[in-house]
Amino acid sequence: MIGGSMAIALKEKGFASEIIGVDASEKNLQQALDRGFIDRALPLEEAVALSDLIILAIPMDALMTVLPQVLNDMKGQVVMEVGSTKEKFLQAVKDHPQRGRLVATHPMAGTEYSGPEAAVSGLFEGKCTVLCNIDQSDEDAVSLVKKVYETLGMQIVYMDAASHDLHAAYVSHISHITSFALALTVLEKEKEEKAIFELAGGGFASTVRLAKSSPDMWVPIFKQNRHNVLDVLYEHIHQLKKFKQLLIDEDYETIYKMIQESNAIRRIIK
Amino acid sequence: MIGGSMAIALKEKGFASEIIGVDASEKNLQQALDRGFIDRALPLEEAVALSDLIILAIPMDALMTVLPQVLNDMKGQVVMEVGSTKEKFLQAVKDHPQRGRLVATHPMAGTEYSGPEAAVSGLFEGKCTVLCNIDQSDEDAVSLVKKVYETLGMQIVYMDAASHDLHAAYVSHISHITSFALALTVLEKEKEEKAIFELAGGGFASTVRLAKSSPDMWVPIFKQNRHNVLDVLYEHIHQLKKFKQLLIDEDYETIYKMIQESNAIRRIIK
Repeated sequence: MIGGSMAIALKEKGFASEIIGVDASEKNLQQALDRGFIDRALPLEEAVALSDLIILAIPMDALMTVLPQVLNDMKGQVVMEVGSTKEKFLQAVKDHPQRGRLVATHPMAGTEYSGPEAAVSGLFEGKCTVLCNIDQSDEDAVSLVKKVYETLGMQIVYMDAASHDLHAAYVSHISHITSFALALTVLEKEKEEKAIFELAGGGFASTVRLAKSSPDMWVPIFKQNRHNVLDVLYEHIHQLKKFKQLLIDEDYETIYKMIQESNAIRRIIK
Repeated sequence: MIGGSMAIALKEKGFASEIIGVDASEKNLQQALDRGFIDRALPLEEAVALSDLIILAIPMDALMTVLPQVLNDMKGQVVMEVGSTKEKFLQAVKDHPQRGRLVATHPMAGTEYSGPEAAVSGLFEGKCTVLCNIDQSDEDAVSLVKKVYETLGMQIVYMDAASHDLHAAYVSHISHITSFALALTVLEKEKEEKAIFELAGGGFASTVRLAKSSPDMWVPIFKQNRHNVLDVLYEHIHQLKKFKQLLIDEDYETIYKMIQESNAIRRIIK
């Protein structure tokens, strides 16, 4: 989805003249060819040899094996990756002789869908992307990647890997866990109350839509960002328990104050 | 917001020839007059005396005092209310001599915004509304209210008050609590990490948007549906603790299975 959306936009805007697709799934490649956002499909090694810029948009566990391989095969081109966590894999490649050719990025865009069918033009427009630890990347590599994101219409933010992973846990990873948990809560209830979803409206859909997200993508993220995700999960459970205790105590005045405080989120989201 | 949106739609579709607005806030009434979705503003008693159909769209605590008053003042017209919980106040008016003139309903539509500024035409179109305990309402009253909802383009579901309150706790009230708690979790972090929201994207916005909801509306709902809300809150915290424990244990295989199970929500929401 991320790779495909980039392919579409970079082609449309004339940034790329040829796009080669690489994927573990033959079906995905065929769809990408059918939708016309890749020009041809090749095995990884051949594709790397022919490319000026290599974009890795794959689950974090795959990245742990594919990235070192690409760095080994590269002859001075640039590779950018777009993963959701940073610290662990950057640690793993930090002494690689071609580390400077790698730019670690995280475009904050996406939906609950995966695969080439979910790819859309304009996905990145107006959103924000993170460039991580750019002091470890060569200047020309950073320039090229900046050009990519400017072409996609994104605003660039710079962060070190540790800050990125902390931030991402708070404003992205936890949202997915609450959605998964909320979906399971109601699906559990459905076992005894068949029609429980009959009244589900927009508010419910909004809070659980992320629960449609793929475990193939998310389990590796939780794995690699385990420490930060646990921190925020502790804090979130603590807040929920506070609500629960206040409800048990029928302390509606304090509940009122908590809701009022949470309303401060209006400042952040439109 | 609900009352105003109904006023707009019922006027547009020619269902109502004159709409009288009643509100505790002069400012709200003035806005409703300015936007033209009420024809005039009157005190409650006078408005009731002049109306064929009285629609009560007010917070649940206000309903507990206003509804008995309206039932006392009415001379055989019809009153419908649109509140988010049902059991408690229906219990309170169950022996009122004009109980038959009341139809208890819950249109499953709304946003995180309140007040006349948030009122929009088409809010109800295609959505679902609940009629509760209609065996306690007169037939002609139910017919009139059905006509209202058909005019608004809503699909009607019938339920007893207890089922309604249970369902609403699972597919609406809990979503609000998780949003309030999630907003507080990240706002807490912001105290030490000023830029924590820098990366907040669509997923975060989606899971916390309900945290913009008014405490004036929601505290009375949690109060009146306390028992059901506590039940679902226990279950939700249990699911989150399960995630937390699995993450502590690094049992990624079971996390994978839980996410896969939660993906079943795809069946429910588009």
